[in-house]
Amino acid sequence: MSKPSVFNVKVDRFSENQTERKIDLVAVEEPLEIRLGFGKKEERVQRAITVTMRTPGNDYELATGLLFNEGIIKSYDDIADIHFCQDTGKQEEAENVVRVELAYEITPNLLPLERNFYTNSSCGVCGKTSIDSLEIRDCAIIPPAKPVLSRATLTSLPEKLRKSQSVFEHTGGLHASALFRPDGDLVIMREDIGRHNALDKLIGAMVFERKIPLYNYLLLVSGRASFELVQKSVVAGIPIMAAVGAPSSLAVDLAERFGITLVGFLKENYFNIYSHPSRVIA
Amino acid sequence: MSKPSVFNVKVDRFSENQTERKIDLVAVEEPLEIRLGFGKKEERVQRAITVTMRTPGNDYELATGLLFNEGIIKSYDDIADIHFCQDTGKQEEAENVVRVELAYEITPNLLPLERNFYTNSSCGVCGKTSIDSLEIRDCAIIPPAKPVLSRATLTSLPEKLRKSQSVFEHTGGLHASALFRPDGDLVIMREDIGRHNALDKLIGAMVFERKIPLYNYLLLVSGRASFELVQKSVVAGIPIMAAVGAPSSLAVDLAERFGITLVGFLKENYFNIYSHPSRVIA
Repeated sequence: MSKPSVFNVKVDRFSENQTERKIDLVAVEEPLEIRLGFGKKEERVQRAITVTMRTPGNDYELATGLLFNEGIIKSYDDIADIHFCQDTGKQEEAENVVRVELAYEITPNLLPLERNFYTNSSCGVCGKTSIDSLEIRDCAIIPPAKPVLSRATLTSLPEKLRKSQSVFEHTGGLHASALFRPDGDLVIMREDIGRHNALDKLIGAMVFERKIPLYNYLLLVSGRASFELVQKSVVAGIPIMAAVGAPSSLAVDLAERFGITLVGFLKENYFNIYSHPSRVIA
Repeated sequence: MSKPSVFNVKVDRFSENQTERKIDLVAVEEPLEIRLGFGKKEERVQRAITVTMRTPGNDYELATGLLFNEGIIKSYDDIADIHFCQDTGKQEEAENVVRVELAYEITPNLLPLERNFYTNSSCGVCGKTSIDSLEIRDCAIIPPAKPVLSRATLTSLPEKLRKSQSVFEHTGGLHASALFRPDGDLVIMREDIGRHNALDKLIGAMVFERKIPLYNYLLLVSGRASFELVQKSVVAGIPIMAAVGAPSSLAVDLAERFGITLVGFLKENYFNIYSHPSRVIA
């Protein structure tokens, strides 16, 4: 049994000056707890890492992408097993707890998760130190120039994303993240009620396929480009990130610093490039 | 000196088949750490509570709203003082750390913050228990019926919200939350790059004005209606919540359970009502 990602609800719809009772679809939102098992064979430890509100589906990818983004795993080899905890004893909880077992030789650094990774007494609380902390974690600057894509390819992406989003059409409630090749071919798309989850699912899927770093791809996100989303692109090595919506100041700073081409307000015949524009050609 | 909420950046803008170098505005995103001071006079303790990525401005309201929503304070009387920590010693950090001093007699329950409030070993991890945890916290069911508003008033709200959003027009990057009276008069509007922050700022402002519970108001949010936003409405006692975007399944469940009229996809001549429709009349 897999949890559904959409749900039927009764609504009173007001349209064209009249009200009708209708059945409508909404996107499912449920908590997912991610637990980590680690340590030597005889001394395994279990730790609850986080709870995120997500749309069920691709939950193993979500857990994997999140652990990768936080620096707890570096590749698929660091994972011995992933499974839903079926021993929580409650029907409602089935498939809302994922347990990731690390390989025996992996000792995870959980310090960044003790608090939000961008704050601790030594690194301070400001935009600059938020960015510095990624350098402290040895995140690489993306190699310049490659890949290159044309303006025509770039402006064709939002329509391709929309066509690939089946659930969004019905609910209007899901964010999407999609990876494309520089020629505009869609590689993978993931949806979630949380935009960070959609990107974690996508990156988790690429960790499974051993495609990290993602130097030869470009990313499109359905909403805005926040610091958090650009940060995930940095960690995964994505050289071009485009957003249908606006970027934030810190997203622009971060993209500039790590060599990412950041595109905002991408539409059929319009976009802004905020950093490293040379990857987009006429 | 107050931190700016918008920032100038250089962009390469592609529009009408040509590219131009322009100056554009983006919404500022910076971390804010919230620290709590509490305990008897001679035994004051300081604890860092959380870090949130926010747009600077109304930071005291943001801290207050967040503490109120988490159940750490019940009213303005619980706060002895709020100030920016100026002793962090770094220029970049100025006004990125807010310290809230509780009154001597207040002993805060920080357990819900130890981990995300909707998960602990006794309460489980599922939508139902996420909702139950609010009942455990004694959040009141909103009294039925009152207030009542007309369809015409409801459909007039998005335009009023847009007109009140000065920064949004320039950056396209900010979420807004606004409180209205049942006759459609705008009471207060707050903006932030994070939609949960925009609502925390709004509720914090109403805590300052001692207007909680907000039984006589209705809320409009610029984006989607998630569990988290409806939860904040429950805690603040807001009887009608309208969203320009879609609601989630758990948002609908929560609104139904706590007596909130939840409206989604609100437009000039269109909306869906997901729960307690009797407050909206012809």
